[in-house]
Amino acid sequence: MPEERRDELEAILSEEQVRSLQLIETLRGIRPEDLARLLVYFDPDDKIQIFEHLEKEPAAEVLNETDPTSREEILSTAKTEKLAPIIELMPPDEAADLVSGMPSERRSPLLRLTPALADEIRPLLLYDPETAGGRMTPEFVSVAHGETAGGAMLAIQGSIDAEWVNYVYVLDEHGRLAGTLSIRDLISSKPETPIEAIMTLDVISAPAEMDQEEVARLIDTYHLSAVPVVDDGGKMLGIVTVDDAIDVIQSEASEDMYQLAGTTAPHPTAQRLHRVALGRIPYLTVTLLGGLLIVFVESRFKGFLETYIAIAMFIPVIIGMAGNVGIQSSTIVVRGLATGEIQPERLLSVLWREVIVGITLGGVFGIACGGAAAILANVLELGTPLGSAVGLGMFSGLCVASLFGGLVPIACHRLKMDPAIAAGPFVTTLNDLTALSVYLWISLVVIGNP
Amino acid sequence: MPEERRDELEAILSEEQVRSLQLIETLRGIRPEDLARLLVYFDPDDKIQIFEHLEKEPAAEVLNETDPTSREEILSTAKTEKLAPIIELMPPDEAADLVSGMPSERRSPLLRLTPALADEIRPLLLYDPETAGGRMTPEFVSVAHGETAGGAMLAIQGSIDAEWVNYVYVLDEHGRLAGTLSIRDLISSKPETPIEAIMTLDVISAPAEMDQEEVARLIDTYHLSAVPVVDDGGKMLGIVTVDDAIDVIQSEASEDMYQLAGTTAPHPTAQRLHRVALGRIPYLTVTLLGGLLIVFVESRFKGFLETYIAIAMFIPVIIGMAGNVGIQSSTIVVRGLATGEIQPERLLSVLWREVIVGITLGGVFGIACGGAAAILANVLELGTPLGSAVGLGMFSGLCVASLFGGLVPIACHRLKMDPAIAAGPFVTTLNDLTALSVYLWISLVVIGNP
Repeated sequence: MPEERRDELEAILSEEQVRSLQLIETLRGIRPEDLARLLVYFDPDDKIQIFEHLEKEPAAEVLNETDPTSREEILSTAKTEKLAPIIELMPPDEAADLVSGMPSERRSPLLRLTPALADEIRPLLLYDPETAGGRMTPEFVSVAHGETAGGAMLAIQGSIDAEWVNYVYVLDEHGRLAGTLSIRDLISSKPETPIEAIMTLDVISAPAEMDQEEVARLIDTYHLSAVPVVDDGGKMLGIVTVDDAIDVIQSEASEDMYQLAGTTAPHPTAQRLHRVALGRIPYLTVTLLGGLLIVFVESRFKGFLETYIAIAMFIPVIIGMAGNVGIQSSTIVVRGLATGEIQPERLLSVLWREVIVGITLGGVFGIACGGAAAILANVLELGTPLGSAVGLGMFSGLCVASLFGGLVPIACHRLKMDPAIAAGPFVTTLNDLTALSVYLWISLVVIGNP
Repeated sequence: MPEERRDELEAILSEEQVRSLQLIETLRGIRPEDLARLLVYFDPDDKIQIFEHLEKEPAAEVLNETDPTSREEILSTAKTEKLAPIIELMPPDEAADLVSGMPSERRSPLLRLTPALADEIRPLLLYDPETAGGRMTPEFVSVAHGETAGGAMLAIQGSIDAEWVNYVYVLDEHGRLAGTLSIRDLISSKPETPIEAIMTLDVISAPAEMDQEEVARLIDTYHLSAVPVVDDGGKMLGIVTVDDAIDVIQSEASEDMYQLAGTTAPHPTAQRLHRVALGRIPYLTVTLLGGLLIVFVESRFKGFLETYIAIAMFIPVIIGMAGNVGIQSSTIVVRGLATGEIQPERLLSVLWREVIVGITLGGVFGIACGGAAAILANVLELGTPLGSAVGLGMFSGLCVASLFGGLVPIACHRLKMDPAIAAGPFVTTLNDLTALSVYLWISLVVIGNP
């Protein structure tokens, strides 16, 4: 369905003289969320054309939801006078993210044109965008202690901006969060009921500095539709809503996956190609340097390998398997930490489990590969008694790989580094090198110097 | 905080004679969601002790939220008479999932004890658990066409079971979904307002057979707190709520990550160890077989490699880099398809982008690695003119790796297979083999047969 609209839009935009009325009419028939996803298909010029023909409200939504490259293209081209009223319509948290990403020569004139917005987003800009404070919207429904259910209902009716009305927050005289009222309890209560009688006192809240991943985990664990954000003194500042939590969960999962694979670009299919390529160079450089170290280690065994070339032939098998086992352990630790399935104090028991699994797999594949090596040595006439060297090399390679695969992300976590960054190519390189060294050393011991 | 509770629980359970009253008291002080996550730390016997000392409502929540292994242990041990009233308290969609996972000799007596629940979940069992129909709850608030805002408010007050009251669904005389009412519009309307005047006609709904990932994507894209599920005739059957969508998003991301790394177990840190090890064997077998094929290819070049051992030494570098580039492309395609960032008809353009990036990286690292090889050949006295063979081998290896890395998951997607299953070890093995063959062949052409 959105796809047909895309063809329609392309046809209109490809005409010599774009017919504005027809474009406006077509855009009215597309949901802003769909349009936001379709923009990636269009040239920068066409994106601007589309954006300029939108009404203010859908324009605000498209700007908010679209991929970062399209957003950047629109923000850098559209006139400030055109942008200001659109950004004013955005939820303050999203407007703050957008404004904080703009170059200051664009930001200052924009904020001068939108004084009310500037006041509203200034406090939000104080927080790291990846914390509860950076993610929250200051628009929520609240009532003072001592009010009635009817008063709370009036507060909901009067809060035009707040989108999320599932909860009404009860604040004391100092603005501190005292309890919450669910909309369902309000509807079922008589208007004169004091809110103290129906409010929930056991409120889950997030300090403003809490990392966004943790905030998302609170929303996920306790099935909340919004979590209140409070400052050090317990004063309520805003709420983070469940749709923000979904964004956080999606983007953190993507980030971890891309980092495990050794690439950094968020939205890699919407980025310019040279950025995508540049983003992969650091990781591939780690792999290359690791590879050159492998060559160095091999060169220490040059005479041995020349005589027993079959030992060299099995190097890719050993390090391929070790790399695979290592990345399995790393992925389990990285993902477990991200979803909260692994609590930090359980890390050592998880590591221990991985090592036991590594020893088991080492046993199974040591025997399988050692056997296969003994047979291949005969069939392919490799002329070296390979079985025990390859089998033992595989066994020890997999044991070490499961240990390092688990240990490196755990160490990163302890050192407050992102476990996913180090766990990809770095772990693989480390495991390759260790497995290789152990295998060559065992081979030398088993077969003996020529 | 939940951690202190864990120590407290452990202390109570470790006593010779567990003091029931103390255990009940301690359990009352722990949120069921926290207890569900803590269970993984306890022995099967202790899990049962905890479960049996819970009140019915928290017991239902713990059973629903805990990890699959703990759930299985409780379900297989607890008495049917004890379980029945607890399962009756669970939301019907979750009770259905739970019951459908039980062996039939346990299921039948349970359903006989809970006739009302049996009636309610029977229609849910008709659907694949990973579809909209399998995920939905049949409990939602609805009003008939022709009602007033006041009537809709009464319907909300009367719906004790429905947890999600953000929307009231308007049904026509055949039970077909005609529109939705938001709770906010209801609160702001006079009771006598006809619902036709305030309801939204443009409703996003999901057919019962829709895959759960797509349902989650609808909720994410359109920022819904619930999506109505309809049958072929448009009759409304239930709703899938945003907390279900979060579960789906989390578990599908975990599944993709684990599969890319070559391991299948969901909740790998809560599974029994032999299952974790068994789950990795198929993938490692693919890697091993690929490795043995590598040995076979190398053996065809045995004489050449014996003479020019340095060529053999660079094999791990070439295939390591090719494996890395391949998994980058695969990850981008797999994740892009999962998040909806890549729409299916954009796949070929994404593949094309990956190939261009691969060619660029091949150029950069071909030159870097070729140069390094030429230098190392001198420094380590490897005695072979390596530079051009290694450089060209690297270049072509990376080009091919980006092509296969993108192509394999795309092909899987077209063949309606899960792209993540094939994209991990399978792509790496394919890339290793291709890169190796191309490299050895180029080396032979450049250096010549000894």
